[in-house]
Amino acid sequence: GVEKKILVIPGDGIGQEVTAWGQKVLMAIAKNYHHTFTFEEGIMGHVAIEATGDPLPEETLQKARNSDAILFGAIGHAKYDNDPTLKVRPEQGLLKIRKELGLYANLRPIKLFDELLEASSIKPEILRGSDILFFRELTGDVYFGEKIRTADRNTASDLMIYHRYEVERIARKAYDAARTRRKKLCSVDKANVLEASRLWREVVQEVAKEYPDVETEHMFIDNAAMQLIKDPKRFDVVVTGNLFGDILTDEASQIAGSMGMLASASIGDSTGFFEPIHGSAHDIAGKGIANPLASILSVALMLDISFGLKTESQRVIKAVEATLRQGFRTMDIANKHTENHCIMGTDAMGAKVLENLN
Amino acid sequence: GVEKKILVIPGDGIGQEVTAWGQKVLMAIAKNYHHTFTFEEGIMGHVAIEATGDPLPEETLQKARNSDAILFGAIGHAKYDNDPTLKVRPEQGLLKIRKELGLYANLRPIKLFDELLEASSIKPEILRGSDILFFRELTGDVYFGEKIRTADRNTASDLMIYHRYEVERIARKAYDAARTRRKKLCSVDKANVLEASRLWREVVQEVAKEYPDVETEHMFIDNAAMQLIKDPKRFDVVVTGNLFGDILTDEASQIAGSMGMLASASIGDSTGFFEPIHGSAHDIAGKGIANPLASILSVALMLDISFGLKTESQRVIKAVEATLRQGFRTMDIANKHTENHCIMGTDAMGAKVLENLN
Ligand SMILES: CC(C)[C@H](C(=O)O)[C@@H](O)C(=O)O
Ligand SMILES: CC(C)[C@H](C(=O)O)[C@@H](O)C(=O)O
Repeated sequence: GVEKKILVIPGDGIGQEVTAWGQKVLMAIAKNYHHTFTFEEGIMGHVAIEATGDPLPEETLQKARNSDAILFGAIGHAKYDNDPTLKVRPEQGLLKIRKELGLYANLRPIKLFDELLEASSIKPEILRGSDILFFRELTGDVYFGEKIRTADRNTASDLMIYHRYEVERIARKAYDAARTRRKKLCSVDKANVLEASRLWREVVQEVAKEYPDVETEHMFIDNAAMQLIKDPKRFDVVVTGNLFGDILTDEASQIAGSMGMLASASIGDSTGFFEPIHGSAHDIAGKGIANPLASILSVALMLDISFGLKTESQRVIKAVEATLRQGFRTMDIANKHTENHCIMGTDAMGAKVLENLN
Repeated sequence: GVEKKILVIPGDGIGQEVTAWGQKVLMAIAKNYHHTFTFEEGIMGHVAIEATGDPLPEETLQKARNSDAILFGAIGHAKYDNDPTLKVRPEQGLLKIRKELGLYANLRPIKLFDELLEASSIKPEILRGSDILFFRELTGDVYFGEKIRTADRNTASDLMIYHRYEVERIARKAYDAARTRRKKLCSVDKANVLEASRLWREVVQEVAKEYPDVETEHMFIDNAAMQLIKDPKRFDVVVTGNLFGDILTDEASQIAGSMGMLASASIGDSTGFFEPIHGSAHDIAGKGIANPLASILSVALMLDISFGLKTESQRVIKAVEATLRQGFRTMDIANKHTENHCIMGTDAMGAKVLENLN
């Protein structure tokens, strides 16, 4: 068995409830496969601001640097959303840890579980067979460019900026992945309007030459947002910038039936960082009804990508599949028109997955 | 009858084919209702670059200033999309005319014609009853902020920037419209990350106080891109910035069955500018299969918004509805599973609408 140190950062809102189940799944895998996973816990986001005044306390960052992988929950709180003038904000913690750990590539696999074909707002015949792997650039773009608010507070700006090396390294990662899949890559930008996108497109065109076996397509973000819904099967690997990736992958959650199903892996120089793509969902936090599957599937990504434990990773995915096949659903993925679904809360659902792991 | 001067700018690609039908509908309306519409033609985009080296020749701009309304087609060409290093680009023409004419508010109504319920990739029960009016800010944001490419060409940036007055005036327009509708306004931004969005949200919150009878909601762009597909009926009026509006309205085309159905009105200080939201679609240009309905529906918007001719505008919309009810379809909106559809090209479809106008 392997020995791994895992930092768990539940964060805000439903992050607390769902991450508990991700961790339990890790513990079960450790037991079943004789690995030694040791856990530490860290705070980040609104809870960290409340406790320390800092959305990413130095202590959490240190623990992150010393761990082999990080399991994260969610971040954000209505208080800050309602008051845009607040200076210290939960999301700064997430952005900072991504930057500090050099997590420049965010992988978001969008794959529909057959059992959820009916849970989506999109027609089953459009969805069936969809399988997209998004590479979202995660440490550049308008997220990290200089932010300015004039003294009179009447003008505000953010710099959308990309450097050649940033585009190059994420493009290579995406092309490498495309090679192991259906050998199609779609790069999304807005090169008809934005200079940063024109650089993006130039660099992807250059990197493309190193991968003549992969078919490259360039698409404008507006068109991509449309095509994703119109014909999701046309996509294999999609690579795009931080902002466009944020938008497209949330939209793509409808392809997977629900946001509650989607996991992501952020990788870069060292420690991998694994999180559901859903947010803190304060409207349902504390009610025990959040879907724990995205956190559990984040664990599957961790086992595969950070620890190279492919069998264990598949085991987790199979347990999720089995749970869905048995008809168990959280509210967000329940089909109102089916009688043989059993709708349950976070803990009951997590427990079913655990049962199916054994 | 009224007297109006209309500038027709067909632009690039299918813009030529579809705009011809928008103009014919205007001529038919003039005849039926005893108005005097005089037409001039202007060039813009790739065709203008080829003819004069300038994507928006001074002559076109002069004609635009002297007209009561402008009917535009589409812009763009694969040549520029494939070569991001080209300095003179078709889209600059469109951006410049929007800026020069002060067209800061872009209205994009998204309403499903019952006859197209089956043409969408989204389930009919999700779509039925959807009716959204987008207000996209059109002369600010990252579209018009300073663009920089470093001398070594390795770094590129665009400034995402908003001024208070820009947000205020579009917010007021959107709230005014919400009052005449279902009294719900959703403002879309990314205030958890972007300073420009935090200004946006602050200003909308202020303007909201003047409209206590309208229910205001603030939503992050990633969530909005998801909700739009998951539950389009929850939206009434949506107001957002230039970039987010570009993305959301293209995505929303799936709610209307097809991009080929969507018209837009750009308004501001004086002359109104009317265009389909679809692009130049060079892959089908010249084949005579483009859908002319978005151009025809742009004419309906012109009659209503610029000329105040509500009866005539409704007449055009009714003619489009009748054409669809008779089973006539262009390729993009045809339902493969229905036998009683007659699939036709641009000209045959346009002719059917004309017949239904009389
Ligand atoms: C919480 C927010 C800062 C974050 C982002 O925009 O990156 C989230 O939406 C995500 O996608 O991980
Ligand atoms: C052609 C392009 C510059 C334009 C835009 O992005 O505004 C188009 O996509 C639109 O939506 O009108």
